Amino acid sequence: MSKLYLGIDLGGTTIKFGMVDEAGKVRKQWNIPTNIEDGGSHILPDMLDSIGNYLPKYASDQVMGIGLGTPGTVDQVHGTVNGAFNLNWTTEQPLKEKIESAFKIPFFVENDANVAALGERWVGAGENQNEVVFVTLGTGIGGGIIANGKLVHGIAGSGGEIGHIVVKPDGYPCTCGNRGCLETIASATGIARVGESFAGKYPESLLGEAAQKGKLNAKIVFDLAKSGDQAAIEAVDYVTYYLAWGLGQVADVLNPQYIVIGGGVSASGQFLIDHINKFFPNFVFDNIKKTTSLRLAELGNDAGILGAASLVRESLKEIEEGV
Amino acid sequence: MSKLYLGIDLGGTTIKFGMVDEAGKVRKQWNIPTNIEDGGSHILPDMLDSIGNYLPKYASDQVMGIGLGTPGTVDQVHGTVNGAFNLNWTTEQPLKEKIESAFKIPFFVENDANVAALGERWVGAGENQNEVVFVTLGTGIGGGIIANGKLVHGIAGSGGEIGHIVVKPDGYPCTCGNRGCLETIASATGIARVGESFAGKYPESLLGEAAQKGKLNAKIVFDLAKSGDQAAIEAVDYVTYYLAWGLGQVADVLNPQYIVIGGGVSASGQFLIDHINKFFPNFVFDNIKKTTSLRLAELGNDAGILGAASLVRESLKEIEEGV
Repeated sequence: MSKLYLGIDLGGTTIKFGMVDEAGKVRKQWNIPTNIEDGGSHILPDMLDSIGNYLPKYASDQVMGIGLGTPGTVDQVHGTVNGAFNLNWTTEQPLKEKIESAFKIPFFVENDANVAALGERWVGAGENQNEVVFVTLGTGIGGGIIANGKLVHGIAGSGGEIGHIVVKPDGYPCTCGNRGCLETIASATGIARVGESFAGKYPESLLGEAAQKGKLNAKIVFDLAKSGDQAAIEAVDYVTYYLAWGLGQVADVLNPQYIVIGGGVSASGQFLIDHINKFFPNFVFDNIKKTTSLRLAELGNDAGILGAASLVRESLKEIEEGV
Repeated sequence: MSKLYLGIDLGGTTIKFGMVDEAGKVRKQWNIPTNIEDGGSHILPDMLDSIGNYLPKYASDQVMGIGLGTPGTVDQVHGTVNGAFNLNWTTEQPLKEKIESAFKIPFFVENDANVAALGERWVGAGENQNEVVFVTLGTGIGGGIIANGKLVHGIAGSGGEIGHIVVKPDGYPCTCGNRGCLETIASATGIARVGESFAGKYPESLLGEAAQKGKLNAKIVFDLAKSGDQAAIEAVDYVTYYLAWGLGQVADVLNPQYIVIGGGVSASGQFLIDHINKFFPNFVFDNIKKTTSLRLAELGNDAGILGAASLVRESLKEIEEGV
């Protein structure tokens, strides 16, 4: 009877559940919609119901624990979450207390970027190595850092705030209150904005024409660059120059084996990696050029449940080691 | 009978030895000159002699191990050092093998910036906390990173290359081959160069006069800034702006509790910290502003032996835990 880990990926529209085995294979997967009404007060009861429907199908000692990746500010020790605005959670949610008392098995929670980092590290592009940085280029930019085989939270949970590395102090204002954070340039939102700016500069280009027809997004900018449009290529160069700079700083601090790039923007694939690699060597120490490499994330939508399963597995290992 | 740790600080002119107790107190200290002649071939025999003179004064089970901080490229696992040019070591030095076979007690070695980080963390400004970054502003800029209570080496030992974070891509060429590394601006050498540049801009200032009399150094620049000379203040602002930016990037990645600043330049004291703090909040995420703080190193010249003792202590703990 193989050990299983129940991984849960709590998102703003869907809650994904996966029973994951010791080899990182998803044995059983199911989803429920996220009901964010009434201040998100249905979310925890809905999760409890859904777990309760599936857990009894397994032997009582087969499922080793439950892991959850969530937006918001996570207190790993007490297993609570607060300030997850896309779930309408504005008060502290006692997840660990409720879930452990309902099912009598260990529960662990982490923010979603850290969970995705654990997933990619375990069975994705991170090849189960101990020095892996994960960066997700989506609406914003998130990050998760694994050093010496463990997540780096820092003193107050803000380790891995790669999106808020400043790369252009006189740049666009960021939601965080500063200016020129990497997120303002290289998130999907940032890329669209950079695209608009190059479209304005070259109105005759394909990029310029696209901008006149409707709102640009990161996919349009990258697709036009791939098709050879010079304005779009300049926009992608601009974005990937700053991305290389920001990730280079991360590499100089951590010398990871892999920097794994995920999130919606990473759908532009090897083209994105190749463009970052054009600039990356200018921003890192010699030995890091030789030993740190950039990779595309591999797990796609499963990163969340696999990472949450990995969170359980790693946490139980730590408890066993008495760390 | 208190446990003791023998910490050794191997420098280009002096080898410092210290018997350190469990509370981080140096019980006995002695030095020998570093003889770098003949390709540094006397260094290891001299160390063996000196250890052999002192070790027999202690009970055979009182000294738990020997730790060493050294320049050069360190292989922690095999306990070898290579490429320590100020020691004239250009071939691999089998330190662990020789020292362990001579004295039959465990030996551990790390590069000097990491060792200083361990020292400051243990009994210096790091207050024995688990999330501490140490940066040394000397001729160059070195760094040591402690996350989750452990040194971060990265995949190839280049974790903590804070001096080579690029802050000005069009800046001065750096010894590493890139341009605009933090080291080119905020090391002692960098500060002197920045000082010269502001002296040229304001030849009538005290800074300008000092530059006409002789070569500027970091101390002169900071002393004149403290005395109110406007040109020197501008130079210090320039330096600390980039220092805040670079350290802000480190803070966004790691959210450490403390960034401890040591090395010769830190002799300018709280004036330096205050100047960095003027700019630091512009470069870090909100939660990091509230939780990461900058501090002056406290151990001075003892950081090396205390850190080397801490290296032994931490390494033995890890072995005991079976990690």
